[in-house]
Amino acid sequence: MVNVGVIGATGYVGIEIVRLLAGHPGIHITSVVSQSFAGQKISDIYPHLKNVFDMECESLDIDKIAGSADIFVTALPHGVSKEVIPRLIEKGKRVIDHSGDFRYKSVEVYEKWYGIRHEMPHLLDMAVYGLPEIYRERIKDAQIVGNPGCYPTCTLLGIAPLLANRLVDTKNIIVDAASGVTGAGRNTELAYQFCECSENFKAYKVAVHRHTSEIEQEMSLLAGEEVMISFTPHLAPMKRGMLATIYANLKTQKSTAELIHLYREYYRGEFFVRILGEGRLPETKHVAGSNFIDIGLVVDKRLNRVVVLSALDNLGKGAAGQAVQDLNIMCGLPEETGLGAPGLYL
Amino acid sequence: MVNVGVIGATGYVGIEIVRLLAGHPGIHITSVVSQSFAGQKISDIYPHLKNVFDMECESLDIDKIAGSADIFVTALPHGVSKEVIPRLIEKGKRVIDHSGDFRYKSVEVYEKWYGIRHEMPHLLDMAVYGLPEIYRERIKDAQIVGNPGCYPTCTLLGIAPLLANRLVDTKNIIVDAASGVTGAGRNTELAYQFCECSENFKAYKVAVHRHTSEIEQEMSLLAGEEVMISFTPHLAPMKRGMLATIYANLKTQKSTAELIHLYREYYRGEFFVRILGEGRLPETKHVAGSNFIDIGLVVDKRLNRVVVLSALDNLGKGAAGQAVQDLNIMCGLPEETGLGAPGLYL
Amino acid sequence: MVNVGVIGATGYVGIEIVRLLAGHPGIHITSVVSQSFAGQKISDIYPHLKNVFDMECESLDIDKIAGSADIFVTALPHGVSKEVIPRLIEKGKRVIDHSGDFRYKSVEVYEKWYGIRHEMPHLLDMAVYGLPEIYRERIKDAQIVGNPGCYPTCTLLGIAPLLANRLVDTKNIIVDAASGVTGAGRNTELAYQFCECSENFKAYKVAVHRHTSEIEQEMSLLAGEEVMISFTPHLAPMKRGMLATIYANLKTQKSTAELIHLYREYYRGEFFVRILGEGRLPETKHVAGSNFIDIGLVVDKRLNRVVVLSALDNLGKGAAGQAVQDLNIMCGLPEETGLGAPGLYL
Amino acid sequence: MVNVGVIGATGYVGIEIVRLLAGHPGIHITSVVSQSFAGQKISDIYPHLKNVFDMECESLDIDKIAGSADIFVTALPHGVSKEVIPRLIEKGKRVIDHSGDFRYKSVEVYEKWYGIRHEMPHLLDMAVYGLPEIYRERIKDAQIVGNPGCYPTCTLLGIAPLLANRLVDTKNIIVDAASGVTGAGRNTELAYQFCECSENFKAYKVAVHRHTSEIEQEMSLLAGEEVMISFTPHLAPMKRGMLATIYANLKTQKSTAELIHLYREYYRGEFFVRILGEGRLPETKHVAGSNFIDIGLVVDKRLNRVVVLSALDNLGKGAAGQAVQDLNIMCGLPEETGLGAPGLYL
Repeated sequence: MVNVGVIGATGYVGIEIVRLLAGHPGIHITSVVSQSFAGQKISDIYPHLKNVFDMECESLDIDKIAGSADIFVTALPHGVSKEVIPRLIEKGKRVIDHSGDFRYKSVEVYEKWYGIRHEMPHLLDMAVYGLPEIYRERIKDAQIVGNPGCYPTCTLLGIAPLLANRLVDTKNIIVDAASGVTGAGRNTELAYQFCECSENFKAYKVAVHRHTSEIEQEMSLLAGEEVMISFTPHLAPMKRGMLATIYANLKTQKSTAELIHLYREYYRGEFFVRILGEGRLPETKHVAGSNFIDIGLVVDKRLNRVVVLSALDNLGKGAAGQAVQDLNIMCGLPEETGLGAPGLYL
Repeated sequence: MVNVGVIGATGYVGIEIVRLLAGHPGIHITSVVSQSFAGQKISDIYPHLKNVFDMECESLDIDKIAGSADIFVTALPHGVSKEVIPRLIEKGKRVIDHSGDFRYKSVEVYEKWYGIRHEMPHLLDMAVYGLPEIYRERIKDAQIVGNPGCYPTCTLLGIAPLLANRLVDTKNIIVDAASGVTGAGRNTELAYQFCECSENFKAYKVAVHRHTSEIEQEMSLLAGEEVMISFTPHLAPMKRGMLATIYANLKTQKSTAELIHLYREYYRGEFFVRILGEGRLPETKHVAGSNFIDIGLVVDKRLNRVVVLSALDNLGKGAAGQAVQDLNIMCGLPEETGLGAPGLYL
Repeated sequence: MVNVGVIGATGYVGIEIVRLLAGHPGIHITSVVSQSFAGQKISDIYPHLKNVFDMECESLDIDKIAGSADIFVTALPHGVSKEVIPRLIEKGKRVIDHSGDFRYKSVEVYEKWYGIRHEMPHLLDMAVYGLPEIYRERIKDAQIVGNPGCYPTCTLLGIAPLLANRLVDTKNIIVDAASGVTGAGRNTELAYQFCECSENFKAYKVAVHRHTSEIEQEMSLLAGEEVMISFTPHLAPMKRGMLATIYANLKTQKSTAELIHLYREYYRGEFFVRILGEGRLPETKHVAGSNFIDIGLVVDKRLNRVVVLSALDNLGKGAAGQAVQDLNIMCGLPEETGLGAPGLYL
Repeated sequence: MVNVGVIGATGYVGIEIVRLLAGHPGIHITSVVSQSFAGQKISDIYPHLKNVFDMECESLDIDKIAGSADIFVTALPHGVSKEVIPRLIEKGKRVIDHSGDFRYKSVEVYEKWYGIRHEMPHLLDMAVYGLPEIYRERIKDAQIVGNPGCYPTCTLLGIAPLLANRLVDTKNIIVDAASGVTGAGRNTELAYQFCECSENFKAYKVAVHRHTSEIEQEMSLLAGEEVMISFTPHLAPMKRGMLATIYANLKTQKSTAELIHLYREYYRGEFFVRILGEGRLPETKHVAGSNFIDIGLVVDKRLNRVVVLSALDNLGKGAAGQAVQDLNIMCGLPEETGLGAPGLYL
């Protein structure tokens, strides 16, 4: 049994981590930290957990919680991390973090896109980008895992086989994606009010979303050349789920069947990546509630352009599920432990 | 490992049973029968199950499937059951059925409310009403379990402590309930089209819904006198979830706190029944995706009337979850086996 | 052309009044007051109005705005009204108010249910309860109209014919109602966040909702005796729409057809009240976006109990639409002026 | 008063035309034809219209209905049009049709993309593509107007200024769009069931959607060269609304402000086309229920690529609203007659 602490347990990502770990046969949650709800039972804040996980939330006292666990998962508002993570590292703890802080190779890129100073540049060297399908080996021993953003996970797994095999022109890649509203977190802004979101669809942060830079960094590494993309996120009137529609011009003619074959080879043995057969397209309801990512693709022969569709649960494979997958890898557990449940569909 | 067959596996209740049993550590699904999709993999019809449960659907051949399992769960359209269940019983198999056929003591009541002849009256004697919190002992050895309707489960567990303790006037009980659209099943009628249901709320089958008679039968047994109720179902624009709001006049003055105490005593040891504290009210999102039922109550002192609110997932505790709970009881397994997951909340 | 000012124009009720008056052939909006958005064009805050109504919001300066209009519609947060309404009255202006302040005959009842002091008791005498179907004659010349709450409008119009004709036992009236989320207003509380409301159904303020007292006051006047009711509001995952399900025991036997006939007589000539034929039930999508209220009813012969279903748009006939209807009456305009549009259905 | 008949009045587009014309001050509906509901009042099928428009549906008898009106709007299932439209034309009637039949210059293109024979090629010469902002002059006297598809209207108005001004490379235009479910019509397929659509987002008909060819035809005419595009439609869990996100590489550097200026010039005087200011993006809730189309745009300087966002109501400007706009033009009425209402937003 591995002991794990969750810091920032009452946000939407945090509580999904708690839900997953509460049913995990190899991991024991030793503490749930929430500044907002310290002293309250977590199941009083999230009553679906009543009788399942009733632990009391603690305020943040690193000295107190550090002793009880070896690994900490952090899902903190920006600005708080820098008070927490360095001290956990000093104490020899391992960390899976959900902010952008440990996802970047370059402090400059981070600072340009986030518009703030990076507070822990000295820790970047020990951080690994937590995308298991690409960095599994490095995650095993990582001190810090920067859990990827939801859009980057969805996009990168969708396009990785094309880039790694140098099949597409890297100058005209378009990523058009839609997310459910949980992507905005436990957030009381008017824009996320039911009456503002229901029966509405819109794009946001066109050409300036931070995840653009994270996607470009990893695409460039996959492609072996600098890649710049258009990335347009949209908000769809649903709670969970994300779909990325990715357009890329093929360098040579390929059929849909050939590319599906190539994807299946690339992801051979990957339990959570499901490559759909020809004529099948992913839907968010097939993955919502799970750690799966479904990928379908279509070659438009008229244009020699491939359209890749990839779907995941932004709280699952896009955040908490992936964190648990990383945790399994870090602990030497089978990767699907505690993550075998399919989504609900209905 | 208990071997179980699911007949009628591709309806909304059937597929939820499959989802639950696919992750059940003590039960092995030996066959999934679907007349509509025979020969197709179940995960091609419900792609959320891909990599999790990919068994091929069979057409109905009782001789073929009977050998492989000891218990069968049936979720069949009306009219088909009578071809299936008697033959399974003849072969010594045990059955959990989801129709109304095995929920009634009286053939007359069934025939009056269903407007059709009962096709298997000779089997009624061996059938047990599958509400574990009330009939657990009889379910253990039952040959046939008639799994209760969703509205009856929600209502009966909500009011049982009041009736069993003779606390309320049985002449003015009102049950006002709302269900998510999965309650209508995998159904292509126009009324259940997205554009007809979204942003809409309505009552249906006012004063004539079949579940009225099922509720009255069990209420009468609990109260030891004949009970007749008003029951009004509503359709809410959501997929899963059911809330019953139950009104009853108290015979003597009781406070909210006293009744909560009484409910907690009545349901002591019941894992799936969560009695909320004073000031707390159930919400369907707290139970959707799970086998829990949440019950809250308020005494209106002005009127000496109690209002009980009970919430469950119509596909969970209201159907498939309860079937698995019954299955666990029939198999001598701990009742929460394979049912420990909380709902998703988000 | 009647000149009207709207004070509190950027809340959900306020903006619906603006939308309706912007298309009204007999009314001219002279000013839109919004403390939060003073200086901004109303169509920058609510972009659906662009090119239709682009007036700039003003801060509240009664001396400035009073001159331009004869009637003011107020939709203000509690506590602000007392600074505004008395001064408008002093200046001889007429007011349609949306708070609870002018709906009560008794200051005591108001103070008990609202838990606060009434700030303008001296103005109650000149206030009329703005339910046109009942108080039309008095509204014509009213100085102040207290526009009824959404639940009271839906309930009172649903039950008025039964009470006025002394047909039901007044001791066991149950009102179970559900509202869309716009009923909570332009509100950034977590509880009204999309991810908290979508796919959820719950009751709230059981036995303590303020509208209970407003409903009881008017029911008592209609019945000629004191009436106390159970009233349970629910929140449904939709934006607009309200359905009340009302239960009452009949004093003598009546058929559904007889009561429908009686309702049609009672509401003869009422354009906005649509009594449905036998076998038909109202749905919120039939009225959402309009000023109509649809009423259906069913007599449960087994219990000699009537179940009335009434549906309206909580922002329409439940608030802004009714305000415009009152305004038409106050101005001597045909009552349906500017209100003839049906809802959207889709 | 112009007399108009609606043939195919009970589909989702048909009933929206009826809703709009019912409130139109210059048009009188003389007959509503519905094969499915002949003999029933239209307000019994669509109860939101009760008291507003209660005309009885007729079966299709061209000789009977032709006499009463000069213009007919047809919204018919494929295969029926060919029995209806030629006979109306023979009788000298004018027609606005909602199928693809009269949108194409080339029978070959139509037959290739629709996979069926064109049944009325002899009528193509008298047909005008009903996009008023581009073909207004020709619509005035048109005998037949082929009302554009929803995706084409949304896309073409979104990109027209760029193409007409030769500002973008026509080889890499990507149109990624999402529609509400009403786009599928009054359709009882399982895929459009509430439980299948709610909380789901998916692409469909990737690279093969018929509207691709319609968009390409008109883009080519605008650009003066052959244009081929990627077009990917998505289904969003909402009833009404459509958003197109259009990507095009600029031939020369342009700023966002410059392009907005250019768009405003291009659409000067167009009441229904609202060009948003810099930093503003369209949302479907701003146009749903109206005939407006909102267009915003962002230049991504890093890539010298423009991203245009255009939003409309697929039943409004994307279908019925545009039909009424065309009708106004054909009748010599002010173009916004009966179409001045803003959407509901809430």
